[in-house]
Amino acid sequence: MPDMNRQVLFASRPQGSVTEGNFRIVDTPMPAPGEGEVLVKNQWLSLDPYMRGRMNDAKSYAPAARIGEVMVGQTVGEVVASRDPAFRPGDKVRAPLGWQLYGVAEARHLTAIDVALAPASYYLGLLGMPGITAWFGLHETGRPRPGETLVVSAASGAVGSVVGQLAKIEGCRVVGIAGGRAKCDYVVQELGFDACVDHKAGNLAQDLRNACPKGVDVNFENVGGPILDAVLAIMNPFSRVVVCGLIAEYEATEPYGYKQLRSVLVNRIRIQGMIVSDWKDRHGEAVAGLSAYLGEGRLKYRESIVEGLDNAPRGFIALLKGENFGKQLVRLA
Amino acid sequence: MPDMNRQVLFASRPQGSVTEGNFRIVDTPMPAPGEGEVLVKNQWLSLDPYMRGRMNDAKSYAPAARIGEVMVGQTVGEVVASRDPAFRPGDKVRAPLGWQLYGVAEARHLTAIDVALAPASYYLGLLGMPGITAWFGLHETGRPRPGETLVVSAASGAVGSVVGQLAKIEGCRVVGIAGGRAKCDYVVQELGFDACVDHKAGNLAQDLRNACPKGVDVNFENVGGPILDAVLAIMNPFSRVVVCGLIAEYEATEPYGYKQLRSVLVNRIRIQGMIVSDWKDRHGEAVAGLSAYLGEGRLKYRESIVEGLDNAPRGFIALLKGENFGKQLVRLA
Repeated sequence: MPDMNRQVLFASRPQGSVTEGNFRIVDTPMPAPGEGEVLVKNQWLSLDPYMRGRMNDAKSYAPAARIGEVMVGQTVGEVVASRDPAFRPGDKVRAPLGWQLYGVAEARHLTAIDVALAPASYYLGLLGMPGITAWFGLHETGRPRPGETLVVSAASGAVGSVVGQLAKIEGCRVVGIAGGRAKCDYVVQELGFDACVDHKAGNLAQDLRNACPKGVDVNFENVGGPILDAVLAIMNPFSRVVVCGLIAEYEATEPYGYKQLRSVLVNRIRIQGMIVSDWKDRHGEAVAGLSAYLGEGRLKYRESIVEGLDNAPRGFIALLKGENFGKQLVRLA
Repeated sequence: MPDMNRQVLFASRPQGSVTEGNFRIVDTPMPAPGEGEVLVKNQWLSLDPYMRGRMNDAKSYAPAARIGEVMVGQTVGEVVASRDPAFRPGDKVRAPLGWQLYGVAEARHLTAIDVALAPASYYLGLLGMPGITAWFGLHETGRPRPGETLVVSAASGAVGSVVGQLAKIEGCRVVGIAGGRAKCDYVVQELGFDACVDHKAGNLAQDLRNACPKGVDVNFENVGGPILDAVLAIMNPFSRVVVCGLIAEYEATEPYGYKQLRSVLVNRIRIQGMIVSDWKDRHGEAVAGLSAYLGEGRLKYRESIVEGLDNAPRGFIALLKGENFGKQLVRLA
């Protein structure tokens, strides 16, 4: 084990788009676990859009990140030293250790993972926060019925790809929205969606109408902005919008103005925000369900990997621009 | 009974604000009831914001009004001739007869009203569509709990005044939003709301914050536009927005752009559109509940009366501008 750790710190709040200057990479002494704590060598770091929200100094469901601290995030890795009886060196765990090569956490914040069931990295995606988000957001908030049409934006992403595949299992017609032909081809040909609309093709409203001849019953929203307005305009009576993410807004200095509230009234649409932690006592239920479908070969999954901690800021900036293709990870070891 | 009837026809679709030129007043031969039909002499005509929506040629929950037809609307009046055994001359009824002095309807479209229980005009307001809208929108869609803070816009109006009084009965802190000091004084001093914010006073966001020190748990929205954005900004986690009306938008040529969707995500707000006909099989339940509270003196109610059918267009235009004070009616006889 080396003497020194490496960390990515939050250096300054972005004004609009995140830049590499908002981060600082530092080498710091290797931490040592105290009583009840565990030292973990991180193997994978998850990059997720919610991190952008933490970089703002605004009220949200979680406190804003503080300047000078290690960037927050989920990791998976291996226990290298433990002062808690629940973990031993060599154990594979998921931990909230953030953007660093090593980290110390209280044992109660670690989750043991089963790498015989799925690769370790899957516990940051399909079997982690994004997959659990998809599971509860779809089943509990969106509540699709067989034969209904579901639209999901960021369809090739960590959450969207799972939402669409789960909705297919529920018997829905599933239409993705993604940026670019390659992602759309993947969504239809690999993930098995019925259609996918390329929002960069310049004809979103008409392409959506063509892909949803019976209108839209459930919209699982990961993006927001003009994409959400276009979907709202063709939603059916008593349809539902799951507001899971608004990545189109996260870097904007002015919020987008949504113009389709008339449709909400006329069609009695239910729009509902959701956050995965609302079901934190039931996460095991989602992981069990997702694992079962994965074992049966009914869920496909793709990762977008950046090599090395030093490249995490670049990977995060690319994620916010939609340049990732599948679940965005940083390989740390 | 005279030989001639008088009607207000829909003459042209408004471009933006409604003008008197969008209507035409005509004298037509007195209609005669066919088999199963009833001739009613209308005493009161209800003017309601939803009528503005019908004047547009846009998809909505009801078909657009057609040029040259009698303006739609609910009336109460007295049966003057009947060819159906369910009604006799002299019966007091509510009917969908529109903007005219007399009208013929199928008997199944008439509802007998009890003028011993409440004045006939109340069956167009407190005990009619607006009151029933308030009842189900509040109890079924808003679902307030004791101790929560409820905000209702157009607070002195036909729907808003009932919503707020019902929410007080449910044990809520109730804050109205109304235009002008006189309406706000009425809402607090007569209707018993805890506070009322004057949206014309120029300090809406701060005044709302002051009136809602614990944030907002239920927003019953009758107006929309900047008023809704201001409320969304201070809504609490797991709060609800009942989208009942958007009168601020009805006359706009461009839809308003709502800027607070981040709050929906962060606070897991549920926004839901509602229309009174969604509970059409349960209207009796609402009327029974409202009648009981009325009988106990727990509901106050105010009417804004225009005299004579010829003045109905002017009354409607005033309603759309918020110049009414209480439920807007036209006295026809």
